[in-house]
Amino acid sequence: MYFPSWLSQLYRGLSRPIRRTTQPIWGSLYRSLLQSSQRRIPEFSSFVVRTNTCGELRSSHLGQEVTLCGWIQYRRQNTFLVLRDFDGLVQVIIPQDESAASVKKILCEAPVESVVQVSGTVISRPAGQENPKMPTGEIEIKVKTAELLNACKKLPFEIKNFVKKTEALRLQYRYLDLRSFQMQYNLRLRSQMVMKMREYLCNLHGFVDIETPTLFKRTPGGAKEFLVPSREPGKFYSLPQSPQQFKQLLMVGGLDRYFQVARCYRDEGSRPDRQPEFTQIDIEMSFVDQTGIQSLIEGLLQYSWPNDKDPVVVPFPTMTFAEVLATYGTDKPDTRFGMKIIDISDVFRNTEIGFLQDALSKPHGTVKAICIPEGAKYLKRKDIESIRNFAADHFNQCSLLGKLRLECADLLETRGVVLRDPTLFSFLWVVDFPLFLPKEENPRELESAHHPFTAPHPSDIHLLYTEPKKARSQHYDLVLNGNEIGGGSIRIHNAELQRYILATLLKEDVKMLSHLLQALDYGAPPHGGIALGLDRLICLVTGSPSIRDVIAFPKSFRGHDLMSNTPDSVPPEELKPYHIRVSKPTDSKAERAH
Amino acid sequence: MYFPSWLSQLYRGLSRPIRRTTQPIWGSLYRSLLQSSQRRIPEFSSFVVRTNTCGELRSSHLGQEVTLCGWIQYRRQNTFLVLRDFDGLVQVIIPQDESAASVKKILCEAPVESVVQVSGTVISRPAGQENPKMPTGEIEIKVKTAELLNACKKLPFEIKNFVKKTEALRLQYRYLDLRSFQMQYNLRLRSQMVMKMREYLCNLHGFVDIETPTLFKRTPGGAKEFLVPSREPGKFYSLPQSPQQFKQLLMVGGLDRYFQVARCYRDEGSRPDRQPEFTQIDIEMSFVDQTGIQSLIEGLLQYSWPNDKDPVVVPFPTMTFAEVLATYGTDKPDTRFGMKIIDISDVFRNTEIGFLQDALSKPHGTVKAICIPEGAKYLKRKDIESIRNFAADHFNQCSLLGKLRLECADLLETRGVVLRDPTLFSFLWVVDFPLFLPKEENPRELESAHHPFTAPHPSDIHLLYTEPKKARSQHYDLVLNGNEIGGGSIRIHNAELQRYILATLLKEDVKMLSHLLQALDYGAPPHGGIALGLDRLICLVTGSPSIRDVIAFPKSFRGHDLMSNTPDSVPPEELKPYHIRVSKPTDSKAERAH
Repeated sequence: MYFPSWLSQLYRGLSRPIRRTTQPIWGSLYRSLLQSSQRRIPEFSSFVVRTNTCGELRSSHLGQEVTLCGWIQYRRQNTFLVLRDFDGLVQVIIPQDESAASVKKILCEAPVESVVQVSGTVISRPAGQENPKMPTGEIEIKVKTAELLNACKKLPFEIKNFVKKTEALRLQYRYLDLRSFQMQYNLRLRSQMVMKMREYLCNLHGFVDIETPTLFKRTPGGAKEFLVPSREPGKFYSLPQSPQQFKQLLMVGGLDRYFQVARCYRDEGSRPDRQPEFTQIDIEMSFVDQTGIQSLIEGLLQYSWPNDKDPVVVPFPTMTFAEVLATYGTDKPDTRFGMKIIDISDVFRNTEIGFLQDALSKPHGTVKAICIPEGAKYLKRKDIESIRNFAADHFNQCSLLGKLRLECADLLETRGVVLRDPTLFSFLWVVDFPLFLPKEENPRELESAHHPFTAPHPSDIHLLYTEPKKARSQHYDLVLNGNEIGGGSIRIHNAELQRYILATLLKEDVKMLSHLLQALDYGAPPHGGIALGLDRLICLVTGSPSIRDVIAFPKSFRGHDLMSNTPDSVPPEELKPYHIRVSKPTDSKAERAH
Repeated sequence: MYFPSWLSQLYRGLSRPIRRTTQPIWGSLYRSLLQSSQRRIPEFSSFVVRTNTCGELRSSHLGQEVTLCGWIQYRRQNTFLVLRDFDGLVQVIIPQDESAASVKKILCEAPVESVVQVSGTVISRPAGQENPKMPTGEIEIKVKTAELLNACKKLPFEIKNFVKKTEALRLQYRYLDLRSFQMQYNLRLRSQMVMKMREYLCNLHGFVDIETPTLFKRTPGGAKEFLVPSREPGKFYSLPQSPQQFKQLLMVGGLDRYFQVARCYRDEGSRPDRQPEFTQIDIEMSFVDQTGIQSLIEGLLQYSWPNDKDPVVVPFPTMTFAEVLATYGTDKPDTRFGMKIIDISDVFRNTEIGFLQDALSKPHGTVKAICIPEGAKYLKRKDIESIRNFAADHFNQCSLLGKLRLECADLLETRGVVLRDPTLFSFLWVVDFPLFLPKEENPRELESAHHPFTAPHPSDIHLLYTEPKKARSQHYDLVLNGNEIGGGSIRIHNAELQRYILATLLKEDVKMLSHLLQALDYGAPPHGGIALGLDRLICLVTGSPSIRDVIAFPKSFRGHDLMSNTPDSVPPEELKPYHIRVSKPTDSKAERAH
């Protein structure tokens, strides 16, 4: 039961100097500073009553008078207790002599998880009682004074890693769950990684951090946007899904390089592992092409990657949309393992096997295979049966082979084969997406594959006027271990082209976007950008089962805050200034009955 | 007509190393890097087609082949043009020889504010034609190739500093207004200052940057909170005015030191120089007292203060609420100048002047004066008259003397006396505020002077049970040049005390805050914090007339986005999923008529 010495690992290299280097120069400076002043950077004990954190004490502190503040993790036989803060654990000896009776009383009577402040001397543990598994295991604190800062009532669950809690309970008492090692690690890693991204963007490459509004106009077809009633009757703001329009307008405004750690909103109702509000690293640049954005992001991830993980190798491989579909059966393949899809049509061109002949005789008919290495050795009869059933269940879905590949990987792993190394981070760029897709409701009409501001591939511009369906775009996705963690595009900067695509090809009402079209008319530079999904990225980096584990106060999958009971009802008089009334579902049923 | 060489000034010292020092060590490294590689840090031209920015070119670049991208600022007689980017201006010579006819055509025909890319050689300007007022005034570009990246249509106004525009026009075409020197400077300074704040908090002092939700529960009495309808009938989220509850819960969760550049929301209807969404530097710490927070903030402002301003001197002076009221007649005094309020009651104790006698005979009756230095020399008869009228208009308002002091300062300044030096930044802490105020609607009941989580002054806890009106709080305000730029407090960490204040003294419904009260029961550490109003602070630092000048896309004072016409109406079918209906004012009148 101890905290690993993770914090120094996490913060090491934090203060890398302002130049690109693989050598962590500040690491050595930091160590030399440490030797001379016995102070760490960051200074976790500045401005407060404690002199040190619990977790930082070592043999080098022997003989020092220290003041510590923390939570009582546990106590044994009224002889010692373990004190915990965010930095780790330290053993505190409860004094037994008469003269220290009041100190003893405080430390023996305070319930577990009470907050105490103790002052005393750092001493060696008696020979043979050192704990090599505990970073502070060579020392203990001989207490002189103690103060109970706050007593703790009986907890709804124990704050121990090995105690399993339901997620609902964790969310209801989130402030207790946050005391766990894993949540402390996840939130601090997130903060560190974002800080390094900011250093890279702002200090190394001249990006400007600009805040854009979240009370905005609804976008055409923005059915997933939360509404915010205004005090003007019938007028609403919308909470935008991304700062897309603003970032483009900033480029028109000559800001040149924009970034923002942007809060975004999407109302998708109940969906597992989605959040109604989420965060993206939002980037836009002028005078850039696709390879420029790709290099920027590769450098960004390399620079900000946590020091306790293997370094990121750049450049990332790139595949076209057509290639990933053919090779992996999905546009976000997990490239940590092989088992690629292989076209074996030619082998069977002269086959007499009926169902293969049938397949090959159809237009675009092919026969494809996935080779499972040593599959015969690892997979059992019932595994084969389950693969067969899976294929039957998903028959005629073009993503079948991609899903089958993952299904086979799952089966192999349950049989003990390590296919997807959790310490491996396999990045992939996917490029050359189609610009348009047939509309689901009406396949003869087109809709944007991503969004209507995406520029067409330079070689395919002529297709816009002849066969727009075949035009590729300058959109790119960044995929990590089978998850889309980012996407962006070079944008249209020509007002005429943008109008043609919006009005003629997409048949959108351009009036709602007139400000953007007008902006393109007034000297818009060529520009492009990208957005990284921060929650998902941190989730993958920390190996967390859910994005809720990398967000301090997440909503449940139904969009509820279980701690405070949110959303909640509002008294009618508070709705009045916004000129809205609640229409209960029964009302509308009654209306229909009319 | 030129850009000052402001950018290097702004970015200088940006990359201060991770230790506290007054010596800008990186400045010298940066210069040595510059000499060896001719590259600036930040690298403004990484990942893009240009080799340099327009504004960075100097004699040291002579003979270099460069590629520049920018906007045509103006053109003279088809012989040269001035190209502009975010970094400044550079002169480009239009080639006149036949072989370069196509280049000439492009550069002569593109309208002003069109975007062009040019490649050529940096050459000296002919002797006598250097422009010492222009940072790039020693050189010009001899162009070889040019490309028109985007033509500009006729503009609604000229992008020149001296061209006066109405604010409505500036907001309607915000993307053009952003090209002005002032907006570029303001937004870049804001980004820089926030970046340095992050370095100080995160890298130097171990704060964790944690994002808290903006879709939350409405707070008791939170009448200024925007509502967000959810898909559950009659249930709403609220957009909170600050992350107050979350930051306290993070301390209960053991996060120890939290900060966030937090988006906050306040629906105040139409108020000049307020915004419905605004940004605060939000901070909370465990095991800290008032002086700890004060030192932290003094260090924060000193560290992040722009290099083109005089350094901030710390510590800031501190006055009690009672002192500032007595001395300046306001709780946010402008301490750049004297003219303090002096109690001269004793002088008139034996006076026979009737109205003074009257005043002194009343309970707490005093006679107070403001001495205007050399007033007799500067103020004219009509000034005295206007002071007299002002006093009469504001008679019986206890803030009269404070207002009168500012009125006199205005008058003196119109007469040419410099009282409030615009380059001077005068900080002041105001402490020992009252904990409660009498309720406006019912003066026999109490309401919190700030918020109900504010801890009482340690010396006044007993008063809570006897004379709560007299209890002082541990709230503190930070005042800069007469503006409140921050406020915070040590919080209540004892659940019993918090319940007593909420339920017994304030008579609030504690059910809505049960999660917070419960959290205090489970080992909440002593904690406190502060929030700085970022928009106001940047407004003062840049000397801008309005906070709208330091926000990229502000709302008008009526809460409108004039560029996109926000807020806007929403088709009824998009309201349905949220179970709300618009009740037009006429409807409710009709209802009343019923």
